[in-house]
Amino acid sequence: MKERNVKFKGKRMGELIFIGMGLYSEKSMREALEIARSADLIYLERYTSIMPGLSIARLRNLLNRDDIVEVKRSDLEENMYKIIDEAQSKQVVILTPGDPFIATTHMAIRIEAEKKGIRTRIIHGVSILTAIPGITGLHAYKFGRTVTITFPNGGRLSETPYDVTKTNLKCNLHTVLLLDIRVEEGRYMTIRDAIGILEELESIRGEGIFSNNRLVIGIARAGSPDYKVRADILCNMKTIDFGSPPHCIVVPAPLHFTEAEALIVLAKAPKEIVMRMVVK
Amino acid sequence: MKERNVKFKGKRMGELIFIGMGLYSEKSMREALEIARSADLIYLERYTSIMPGLSIARLRNLLNRDDIVEVKRSDLEENMYKIIDEAQSKQVVILTPGDPFIATTHMAIRIEAEKKGIRTRIIHGVSILTAIPGITGLHAYKFGRTVTITFPNGGRLSETPYDVTKTNLKCNLHTVLLLDIRVEEGRYMTIRDAIGILEELESIRGEGIFSNNRLVIGIARAGSPDYKVRADILCNMKTIDFGSPPHCIVVPAPLHFTEAEALIVLAKAPKEIVMRMVVK
Repeated sequence: MKERNVKFKGKRMGELIFIGMGLYSEKSMREALEIARSADLIYLERYTSIMPGLSIARLRNLLNRDDIVEVKRSDLEENMYKIIDEAQSKQVVILTPGDPFIATTHMAIRIEAEKKGIRTRIIHGVSILTAIPGITGLHAYKFGRTVTITFPNGGRLSETPYDVTKTNLKCNLHTVLLLDIRVEEGRYMTIRDAIGILEELESIRGEGIFSNNRLVIGIARAGSPDYKVRADILCNMKTIDFGSPPHCIVVPAPLHFTEAEALIVLAKAPKEIVMRMVVK
Repeated sequence: MKERNVKFKGKRMGELIFIGMGLYSEKSMREALEIARSADLIYLERYTSIMPGLSIARLRNLLNRDDIVEVKRSDLEENMYKIIDEAQSKQVVILTPGDPFIATTHMAIRIEAEKKGIRTRIIHGVSILTAIPGITGLHAYKFGRTVTITFPNGGRLSETPYDVTKTNLKCNLHTVLLLDIRVEEGRYMTIRDAIGILEELESIRGEGIFSNNRLVIGIARAGSPDYKVRADILCNMKTIDFGSPPHCIVVPAPLHFTEAEALIVLAKAPKEIVMRMVVK
């Protein structure tokens, strides 16, 4: 975290901070902490995404408990009935990165628990999908389907990111391209890797969806104090150093003028390029 | 909030709780509180949405300050420069419902502040848009464009919800229909009101997008301890009592079988109807 009040040549610098309070009440701002502190059992998974600033030691301290058990994928999938059985009589917490159900994987254990008559509850979390409109200034209601660019499987590239982006663009919708993360293998796709894949897809398909002059937005470490967002044409994106993961990419459709202005101010977008993309 | 450990006939009932930790670090779980407590100036807006459980008295208590100023729309729009000027030298917090930038309205003051060289920061919040996949079990990456059903303007209905849903369905994407909220006028559209509008649009357009047997999902008070979610065909939806606002509607596209199962278990969807919607 940066310091609260920065001083510059003796003058105190100000700041304008927007805080989302969540959906229901002011309690949302501390609900997660209270529940995690008082639960009977607490599990932590960090294989569905990476939280770059997460420290288990600090988490233990924050929750004031030293019994946080880190689980593997198999504990919540093949072997899920152990935890489900515990939740028959105990309050069991599963901590996840981001929002628990943006990755679809945890729905299986929830549905199995519900089928056995166990009450389930969600303390919703902040997700990359709704952080992006705030980071970029793109309008939240103008996003189409989201897609993940995956590492080539046996040398074979999935063309799904191409098709999804093409369909979204045809409907004048922005596309979020999430980048493959394989925490267990320690592999994190960077924006540079992803642009290489998009260029390869373009050379296969040749329909101009990922041409060199396509405006794209790169975002690194959303939600962190040192997040980075830059908008530029695709062929320039590879030259930008985004630092450590996680990274993602947004492909904007034609822009409202307030979106164009936001991209210039917030993401250093080249003015002449974004202004040409504004729909009258 | 319901009680932590419910006892039923002497037997302690368990619970399975999923907690999203946010994007960056375990600090996300208390970041909003710390910043709001220590800021120089703190403003609260509650005109972009309603948080049904929000109590100003409890908020003051939670943040341990009695100087929270509630602002009107004009304070953050026409008269935004007063707050921008304050942020030149002070740390100024604006508290908003949900996520600060899902409604597009606050981007203007942020961009104006940035243009004047003022640092801006976002503490992202939980949004209805990413709460919905968790509540319903629908896959997050299969949602298309979001649209708001607005109150008729001088008797005239906007057909945009019809067109957006039609396009999303054509692309096999789910649609979130947000319902108009006019906090200043004390008007909140209910699911029943909205279904009436969708039926009227259907009678105008006649393309079967909102026919009587269309499966729709109603959600009330997302994020609250007494949220309600029900899936049924459109003509039955009006008979369900969803209670107090805010409400929203989801129109699902063809379903993955795990989505169908989730709707049956979590939203009491009629089994035969959702199973017919499963894509093989």
